[in-house]
Amino acid sequence: MPFDFAPLFPATLPPPAVRWTGAPKYNFVGGNNDPDEIPLDGLIAAAQSVMSREGRTLATYGLNSGPQGYRPLREFLAHKLNRDAGMGCTADDILIVSGSLQALDLVNSALLSRGDTVIVEKDNYQGSLNRFTKLGVAAVGVPLDKGGMRMDALEAALKDLKARGVTPKFIYTIPTVQNPTATVLDESRRARLLALADEYGVPIVEDDCYADLVWSGQRPPALHAMSNAGNVIHVGSFSKSIAPALRVGFIVAPWQVMSRMLSLKTDAGSGALEQMVLAEYCKPLFATHVPALRKGLRKKVETLMEALNEQFGTAAEFDDPKGGIFLWVKLPDNVDSLKLYQAALKEGVAINPGPEWSTDKAHSQSRIRICFASPSHQEIRDGIAMLAEVCRREFGVPARSANVTKAGP
Amino acid sequence: MPFDFAPLFPATLPPPAVRWTGAPKYNFVGGNNDPDEIPLDGLIAAAQSVMSREGRTLATYGLNSGPQGYRPLREFLAHKLNRDAGMGCTADDILIVSGSLQALDLVNSALLSRGDTVIVEKDNYQGSLNRFTKLGVAAVGVPLDKGGMRMDALEAALKDLKARGVTPKFIYTIPTVQNPTATVLDESRRARLLALADEYGVPIVEDDCYADLVWSGQRPPALHAMSNAGNVIHVGSFSKSIAPALRVGFIVAPWQVMSRMLSLKTDAGSGALEQMVLAEYCKPLFATHVPALRKGLRKKVETLMEALNEQFGTAAEFDDPKGGIFLWVKLPDNVDSLKLYQAALKEGVAINPGPEWSTDKAHSQSRIRICFASPSHQEIRDGIAMLAEVCRREFGVPARSANVTKAGP
Repeated sequence: MPFDFAPLFPATLPPPAVRWTGAPKYNFVGGNNDPDEIPLDGLIAAAQSVMSREGRTLATYGLNSGPQGYRPLREFLAHKLNRDAGMGCTADDILIVSGSLQALDLVNSALLSRGDTVIVEKDNYQGSLNRFTKLGVAAVGVPLDKGGMRMDALEAALKDLKARGVTPKFIYTIPTVQNPTATVLDESRRARLLALADEYGVPIVEDDCYADLVWSGQRPPALHAMSNAGNVIHVGSFSKSIAPALRVGFIVAPWQVMSRMLSLKTDAGSGALEQMVLAEYCKPLFATHVPALRKGLRKKVETLMEALNEQFGTAAEFDDPKGGIFLWVKLPDNVDSLKLYQAALKEGVAINPGPEWSTDKAHSQSRIRICFASPSHQEIRDGIAMLAEVCRREFGVPARSANVTKAGP
Repeated sequence: MPFDFAPLFPATLPPPAVRWTGAPKYNFVGGNNDPDEIPLDGLIAAAQSVMSREGRTLATYGLNSGPQGYRPLREFLAHKLNRDAGMGCTADDILIVSGSLQALDLVNSALLSRGDTVIVEKDNYQGSLNRFTKLGVAAVGVPLDKGGMRMDALEAALKDLKARGVTPKFIYTIPTVQNPTATVLDESRRARLLALADEYGVPIVEDDCYADLVWSGQRPPALHAMSNAGNVIHVGSFSKSIAPALRVGFIVAPWQVMSRMLSLKTDAGSGALEQMVLAEYCKPLFATHVPALRKGLRKKVETLMEALNEQFGTAAEFDDPKGGIFLWVKLPDNVDSLKLYQAALKEGVAINPGPEWSTDKAHSQSRIRICFASPSHQEIRDGIAMLAEVCRREFGVPARSANVTKAGP
């Protein structure tokens, strides 16, 4: 009889994971990137040169840069954030972390207690929503429109909470290529958001993970850059711009918060080789790599939108996204996206069901998130055709695909 | 007036970190390794070959290996753990993590609740003791002798806890090159430890981080290997055998616990590039690299022991360590190691004061831990001379150094 660990598990433990059995054939979930766009030659050359020059520092925790991360990478980031996002930060204001998920964990641990309230965009990143739930933190969702978070609704939410004696701990927002809506908050809404935050004494956590992927290449200034109050914590990542498996993200924060997050970051530093390779690669090549990546991703989303139009017709509603790697799609009201998700998975098609990506389960019930960066153009076409097939079988829509009327379920 | 985050911090937040201002001149703390022993050419070649062959998989979270980590690295580990430690595990039993610190966090999160009790070696790794304290878990220390944890004392502790109605959640042990005592538990004590664990229904967490660094190259079989009950969770790392800055560790655990830890590991995988490079390097070269590393480390500790004998004479007591990267040194009873630590740091010498490495503050009060892998031979000699100087100034001992009587304080 093997030892039974079950009686030892704390009551609050999340349910066990299931064994991983490989990726689905048509994988439209997860923030995976386009394998063809990995700048492989550049990364290999960078690994060779930085390791040859500085590899012996791998013998020391944190290299010779201390707990905030490899200094040349922080210097590149300071330069990039100044140039692209208008931020006036320096390397000393930046903490390198193991992906933006660790960033979110550190920010949450530094600022949140059970029973707290935060404000979020109503449709939102599943990983963030799950984190708030686990921490026992109430996430108040603010509706979005084509321009991102609605400022009238934010004001109403702040006013309502104040009337109830609740001061939210922070406003968590993804203003630039919002996940999952792919909206971009324009500069005037940003100013309004900052004014409201200031008025109500609520800081902002700006999740900037997708900001490099605005098709136009012209992102608005970061909230962090526009803030006079120093009330914005800025989170970013290399997952979307270079490669997700590297697990390198960063936080820009005032020292008052940074010093607390450093105490909470008890992992003896994030992976040094990845930091070294990224710094070496990015300094000369990031600025030319990213436009090429955006071009490739734009072609992918065009293939996806064509496939949806062809297979779903008017049954699939979506806005042409402003950038990024995902599309937020509205299906007819009778489609239960959780059921569609399960039925499609059996046919090898993985999608994100709306209710996992929203604080409003009714609103999101017939919505799905489709990630388009990783599958090939052909896989996008074939996968969406299969999804339409499953959706028709389960829900009777779309009635027609590729201009051919199909039998109902 | 910048925004004040202080009112937002949870009451339980640890104190803020202080700004990093660089490493001390004589750095005898931290698990840093010998920069000259980093197998740099091999790692560079491995990076080149694995990235050329598989680099495009960096576009996918977890590569093509799922959440347990890069499969070729898990396969190498399974082979190595079978060969060196007698463990019958396969790649499916292994979870790759971001350093053994994340391993400890995952094990603790899966098994511990506030108010729990664990059993540990009395002198112990600071990082583990701090983790238990933070979690509100009582760590009951079992004394060690030259052979590691004393089994009579362990039995007494288990009996005493049972009499008080307490079942410890687990026995946390570093049986092979114990930190900080550098003792190795022999096979008969291991058998006794397993029998006691079985008798009292308590599982074991085996921290095996230093096991590659037994001078003789002949480590005893792992507790995990000797257990029939499947009650051992085994934790390891590449920090000591290859390079600490890489942040790659691993856990071998039954699926019942593994599946819980996977649910808790919400970081979307550990750094993939480091896993790829390690796997590519280790498969052909680990077995020849490690003996060379051990030889270099053995020379370092001989320099350290000579320097201590020369500078401290009989005032410094220690056992010739069985392996590893640190020496646990007893100074005269009137030496307060916390004060020595502070005084020495002002002179550029960093050491670990005993009370931070023990559950027994009185026992450890005049003890210090000295890490010898990172400083050069000359730095070891100069740093120990400076430490003796400071110790004499503060505590009047050693009275003589290098055969020269010195004036008292």
